[in-house]
Amino acid sequence: MAGRLVNALGSSALAAEAFSDHATLRHMLRFEAALAQAAAEAGLIPKRAAPVIVKACDPALYDFAALADSARRTATLTVPVVKALTDEVAKRDADAAGYVHWGATSQDVIDTAMVLQLGEALPPLLKELDDIVSAFANLARKHRRTPMLGRTLLQPATPIALGQKIAGWASDIARAARRLEASFKETQVVQFGGASGSLSALGDKAEPVMLSLAKRLKLDLPDAPWFTQRVRVAAFAQDAALVVGALAKAARDISLMMQIEVGEAAEPSGPGRGGSSTMPHKRNPVGAALVLSAAGRAPMLAATIVAALPQEHERALGGWQAEWPTMAALIETLASAVQAMHEVAPGLTIDPDAMQANMDATEGAVLAERATFLLAEKMGKQKAGKLVEEALAKGGSFIEALGQLEKELSDELALLGYSPKFVDRLLADLKRR
Amino acid sequence: MAGRLVNALGSSALAAEAFSDHATLRHMLRFEAALAQAAAEAGLIPKRAAPVIVKACDPALYDFAALADSARRTATLTVPVVKALTDEVAKRDADAAGYVHWGATSQDVIDTAMVLQLGEALPPLLKELDDIVSAFANLARKHRRTPMLGRTLLQPATPIALGQKIAGWASDIARAARRLEASFKETQVVQFGGASGSLSALGDKAEPVMLSLAKRLKLDLPDAPWFTQRVRVAAFAQDAALVVGALAKAARDISLMMQIEVGEAAEPSGPGRGGSSTMPHKRNPVGAALVLSAAGRAPMLAATIVAALPQEHERALGGWQAEWPTMAALIETLASAVQAMHEVAPGLTIDPDAMQANMDATEGAVLAERATFLLAEKMGKQKAGKLVEEALAKGGSFIEALGQLEKELSDELALLGYSPKFVDRLLADLKRR
Amino acid sequence: MAGRLVNALGSSALAAEAFSDHATLRHMLRFEAALAQAAAEAGLIPKRAAPVIVKACDPALYDFAALADSARRTATLTVPVVKALTDEVAKRDADAAGYVHWGATSQDVIDTAMVLQLGEALPPLLKELDDIVSAFANLARKHRRTPMLGRTLLQPATPIALGQKIAGWASDIARAARRLEASFKETQVVQFGGASGSLSALGDKAEPVMLSLAKRLKLDLPDAPWFTQRVRVAAFAQDAALVVGALAKAARDISLMMQIEVGEAAEPSGPGRGGSSTMPHKRNPVGAALVLSAAGRAPMLAATIVAALPQEHERALGGWQAEWPTMAALIETLASAVQAMHEVAPGLTIDPDAMQANMDATEGAVLAERATFLLAEKMGKQKAGKLVEEALAKGGSFIEALGQLEKELSDELALLGYSPKFVDRLLADLKRR
Amino acid sequence: MAGRLVNALGSSALAAEAFSDHATLRHMLRFEAALAQAAAEAGLIPKRAAPVIVKACDPALYDFAALADSARRTATLTVPVVKALTDEVAKRDADAAGYVHWGATSQDVIDTAMVLQLGEALPPLLKELDDIVSAFANLARKHRRTPMLGRTLLQPATPIALGQKIAGWASDIARAARRLEASFKETQVVQFGGASGSLSALGDKAEPVMLSLAKRLKLDLPDAPWFTQRVRVAAFAQDAALVVGALAKAARDISLMMQIEVGEAAEPSGPGRGGSSTMPHKRNPVGAALVLSAAGRAPMLAATIVAALPQEHERALGGWQAEWPTMAALIETLASAVQAMHEVAPGLTIDPDAMQANMDATEGAVLAERATFLLAEKMGKQKAGKLVEEALAKGGSFIEALGQLEKELSDELALLGYSPKFVDRLLADLKRR
Repeated sequence: MAGRLVNALGSSALAAEAFSDHATLRHMLRFEAALAQAAAEAGLIPKRAAPVIVKACDPALYDFAALADSARRTATLTVPVVKALTDEVAKRDADAAGYVHWGATSQDVIDTAMVLQLGEALPPLLKELDDIVSAFANLARKHRRTPMLGRTLLQPATPIALGQKIAGWASDIARAARRLEASFKETQVVQFGGASGSLSALGDKAEPVMLSLAKRLKLDLPDAPWFTQRVRVAAFAQDAALVVGALAKAARDISLMMQIEVGEAAEPSGPGRGGSSTMPHKRNPVGAALVLSAAGRAPMLAATIVAALPQEHERALGGWQAEWPTMAALIETLASAVQAMHEVAPGLTIDPDAMQANMDATEGAVLAERATFLLAEKMGKQKAGKLVEEALAKGGSFIEALGQLEKELSDELALLGYSPKFVDRLLADLKRR
Repeated sequence: MAGRLVNALGSSALAAEAFSDHATLRHMLRFEAALAQAAAEAGLIPKRAAPVIVKACDPALYDFAALADSARRTATLTVPVVKALTDEVAKRDADAAGYVHWGATSQDVIDTAMVLQLGEALPPLLKELDDIVSAFANLARKHRRTPMLGRTLLQPATPIALGQKIAGWASDIARAARRLEASFKETQVVQFGGASGSLSALGDKAEPVMLSLAKRLKLDLPDAPWFTQRVRVAAFAQDAALVVGALAKAARDISLMMQIEVGEAAEPSGPGRGGSSTMPHKRNPVGAALVLSAAGRAPMLAATIVAALPQEHERALGGWQAEWPTMAALIETLASAVQAMHEVAPGLTIDPDAMQANMDATEGAVLAERATFLLAEKMGKQKAGKLVEEALAKGGSFIEALGQLEKELSDELALLGYSPKFVDRLLADLKRR
Repeated sequence: MAGRLVNALGSSALAAEAFSDHATLRHMLRFEAALAQAAAEAGLIPKRAAPVIVKACDPALYDFAALADSARRTATLTVPVVKALTDEVAKRDADAAGYVHWGATSQDVIDTAMVLQLGEALPPLLKELDDIVSAFANLARKHRRTPMLGRTLLQPATPIALGQKIAGWASDIARAARRLEASFKETQVVQFGGASGSLSALGDKAEPVMLSLAKRLKLDLPDAPWFTQRVRVAAFAQDAALVVGALAKAARDISLMMQIEVGEAAEPSGPGRGGSSTMPHKRNPVGAALVLSAAGRAPMLAATIVAALPQEHERALGGWQAEWPTMAALIETLASAVQAMHEVAPGLTIDPDAMQANMDATEGAVLAERATFLLAEKMGKQKAGKLVEEALAKGGSFIEALGQLEKELSDELALLGYSPKFVDRLLADLKRR
Repeated sequence: MAGRLVNALGSSALAAEAFSDHATLRHMLRFEAALAQAAAEAGLIPKRAAPVIVKACDPALYDFAALADSARRTATLTVPVVKALTDEVAKRDADAAGYVHWGATSQDVIDTAMVLQLGEALPPLLKELDDIVSAFANLARKHRRTPMLGRTLLQPATPIALGQKIAGWASDIARAARRLEASFKETQVVQFGGASGSLSALGDKAEPVMLSLAKRLKLDLPDAPWFTQRVRVAAFAQDAALVVGALAKAARDISLMMQIEVGEAAEPSGPGRGGSSTMPHKRNPVGAALVLSAAGRAPMLAATIVAALPQEHERALGGWQAEWPTMAALIETLASAVQAMHEVAPGLTIDPDAMQANMDATEGAVLAERATFLLAEKMGKQKAGKLVEEALAKGGSFIEALGQLEKELSDELALLGYSPKFVDRLLADLKRR
């Protein structure tokens, strides 16, 4: 499908490899090889057929383009793959060719291949997510008491500790990543049901073959085939979108803080990183751009898979066929976001002076709320409000204009409130997990 | 917003009540009342202010339409509500009016109100989901060995036990419901952060107030305010969509089995149920229609919430504001689907004779696969395949045409394969949970 | 369904009225009244039955809640409405009651009611869209040569005329609005097909009845019933989402320009407008927030309707039933966005001094590209690039540091390039339409 | 990205080619070549530089994988492409290398390349859509009076002419295709704005260069650059989804009619077409499966593009970057659906006898409505209804059981109503366009 160039910003090398033609065929053939061995072991097919079949299960022997073209004629890639495999086995042993794909159905192969692809793609991503959480947790700890302007609706609000913002990122990324890890594990089950899920072609050998097949593929055995019971797949897809969204929350904030007029943070630089094709002086938030781009796509890719849940009978017409390319695009999107943030998080630069300057520029407005509450304790809220408004209207130093509360408004509690303790609570929770 | 009539098929009485104007205001005022009590307890506001405020926290005192109209001017419903509440308190005690909403921000109120709404809406739905799973589990047990045509791509495949199909429904509904229950529990946390999440207006009273507030509302205390850390909300939304999708898988199958040409199942009847405005003889799959209708909406409603995750800074501009009506629509959609299936599941009628007739009508084709495999054991797959094709071509009784395997093709194993044992495995898993 | 409060920021009074229970029933009864008159005119039902039926077609006579509750039993609101109408007619004339809803089917009534609702809701919105385009066109004309920082990836780029930015908003809003107007007009067709679209119950009176019915409802007559041919509905829904997206582009820019650190624009103020529940000094971009909130919802609401296009046979199971509440939510979302921008556009405040200051703060970087190109003409691009980089590195006034090109870099062409002429082209196109 | 195998059922050879790495780079280089020529022509760069640059604009000279890998570092594919092109030109002429990409920005190249890709991909698809409409129109004409069961909510309703169903498909596909054609044409504009859309680097040469550039690429010149004014792109994307939805309506019906229990239609057969990997006797609705699979994906892909409309300032951060791979996937999805239906439509097989048999099997129920209306004219609706119910309850031949109306219920009008005339109206409209 669309080449690497069109999707250069929406994938990663890792994910592209996992869903490459070679990997796809490799996993399909792993299924066929393991099935042949399991069937031979169970006495369902002749012992000597298995090694011949296994030998032909080498992706290098096949023409990917031809297989892709033929797939449309039967609405399944398995038919041409099995045919090509059978031909290849027949070259070596005409009899063994008769035992290829014995008792399995198309969707057994495709679903298991997808499961195996996820099994290769996810663990490194989960590891990188851990790294991202750690990097942000460290940064949050470091900036546990660094004051900055809180902002709501893109307008200045009362100050917070930068650490609270960053610990918030870490916390939500970790929450989403833990979900993803759990739902990923649930996907790691073999698909094996035969024509309509009853394994009837295997007679009394169904149980030993399915047990052996799962074991050989290092997958769990589900309670039953799940051709049209795809909650575990959809749940995993949704959690992937959730992770992208959590990463994008951090990316959104970073991109806003990197605005030249704000200047509070910067993505790490590096050779050629963040440059422009025409303005050499620019430093673009490229990591944030990649993550936000992923966040624009992932929710709808996940929704596509969820919307396909009401699948017909024992194997679906259309809903299932929409899933594989969508899942591949979703994992590529996820991998792109993870990789991009993995490059940003450990090297994110913070400018506490700019943060202070941005607070100062509000001329005390950020302290107005705290001042109101402090005064209100003495004189009631209405009077307090009036005094504060007048002080704000004078411009210049707010504390000076107010002419009181100098000490109370200068201490950290006025500035940061409970913010540092929220940082502690968030970080403690991350440690517990 | 749109009235009940337009949404009559997309909501349930329960869900409509949970998000009604009365309930919405009731929950917002519960927050304000609990806050006043917590603040008074902590010595933040005068003790005598609290009961006056609590007294004014009665939804019956307010004009819902006026509040809704004013909300747009500040992009938050809290501003007019707090203003109206303050006016109402002032009527009773001008001084106490100064202590309304002390230290809280708009989003504290809205988010906590949403959490409380979910807290009312979800438990009965989770209970009904349990009932649905039980009803299908019982039906699956009963039809553990009832043979029917397996169907793939809407075409006949090998037979399965009806019990496997139904246990599959139960299993996926249960899987999704368990997820929903877990992510629902995670939503049950108070929102309390003040202007930008640091509770700075509360000085050293932040901790006691937030603890007391959470306790009074019977909610958990999160590690920190979650104004723009909304993974727990989005995760819950996604799991709601997942449940709808799992229910819709069953609805899809039921609607297809109810086709007059298939005639294998029927929704329960009842007075006025399933009729047509013009054709009195019709029995429509109304429950399935309602569930499938919900399944067309839920994935995109959930995706809307996930897509809003990259929220700006401490409180978002647009993304957050899109969430509440979307969540309400999603829960209504969920409730509509749950209620509809709750009416169908326990009374679903099965017609085993029609199932047998539909199998018979394939003239043996459903046994062709098993026959091929049995013959192949003796004569190789190629020869076997040819014999079977010839028998099929003759028409009439396939077993007769085949002239052999009469016994093997008539026993249950040929028909059902491992299907009954898959039923056992699925049901055992349901029991374990 | 969810009350007005939950949806206060996602609807407008206009749209809420169009889909209110009263309006919904009014339109359904308009259909029934017009049908009775048309049928009587054609001699299909007794002449005297029509006025009795028409008399009973008064929404005030019915209990909305009871109708909504009953609708779920038949998966259509029409059944209880027709039953209640029949009962109401029977009170007046038992015989006439037999001619209610003669020859029509449920979906005839619902679809036509939806069409009539759109017919009421859209014209004022299209008018307001015109106003918005005009307001922005005027502002663009005024700022045809007002320089400001161009920004790409939220980083400073070369300058543009503010007018180009604003004319761009106007142009895309106008483009989307023209599409919406056209596709709205295509929706204004009656639905009338009887049980399965052949009007067979009407015998040889089908043609006169359908002609008269359409005329009485002031709707066009489509080539055929469109129960499951819903491209015109889906196209309209998509264009509604497009308009919201075009409005949100302007809202996004306005909200970014309103950031206190940027300070280049401000939404109009007004009593109570833009305030905060806790920080009285804040001015929030409330209009932008409402529009961006709508833009987070509209694409998925439209996608829900498009995804429902593959509807079954003559009338669909689930896909159609999902459409009405989704369309209502979409139109409310659209109306909310239009109304919000209609309040912002004519009063948007611009601060050209702040724009100049933001350009100055880049210390010449915004001129670097133009300088490079000018120097390159004399000395080649590489040398030119080096000189420019050195000048930038010195800091302070870039032109001074560069020591040349003072005149060329100070003229408007260097600053604005073709920007003013792009404004002219965009405005001319708006006038042409 | 994911390989061809994973996406074998979701793309077509044509679409895969249009977005292949070779095509992508070819179009990007077409832009660079045309720009060099236009700039030389305008005297902006030396005359002799142009042919050297043009010569290097040969995709075969570049390493696609290396370009894709580098793209992530700058969040734009253009940077490495321009760098590689510059190096390649420098090999030939160091001076000319300084004039590569003169005055353009990254997005100029990418957007124009996407426009050129659409320009290649769409015309053959629009042609195939015409063919599909013609094929269905012919079939509808042929079956203008072929009676079949109308079906609503998957249950039998009154009869219709098969022609009305098929003309409905044709009508909606044509309606969507006309929209797509129009919005496709609007996309065929060059993107050329330089760093931030003002073409300021070009000084007074902006106009001649942009005119010449557009002419050389055979694209229209838009009123202004449209970096963040993407309504025309989003409108096109939505119309693509609409076409897929319209095709899927036909696919849905075909797949339901192909159910063995219904047996009213069949997709054309062909060598290897529609087979199963394990059940050789099966004929699967493979075309319908491919179209329905596309219809599960297209709405969300389009929604992704619409949701990205609120793009920041002069060039967006994330929203734009999400568009290209999404557009490629959407066009592939569209192409897959068009190609699949293009294979089905001209060879769709109809079985009028099965249609008659399915009507007969309802034992007169399909005539019940017409009978009620006919009797009601004589005896009132209530009595009529009772007689009809009794006749239905007897079973067997309904007309016999009714004992009257034999003639009226046997004529075509009773069966088909206005159906044949609706066919005429729909076909006449198709001819007009």
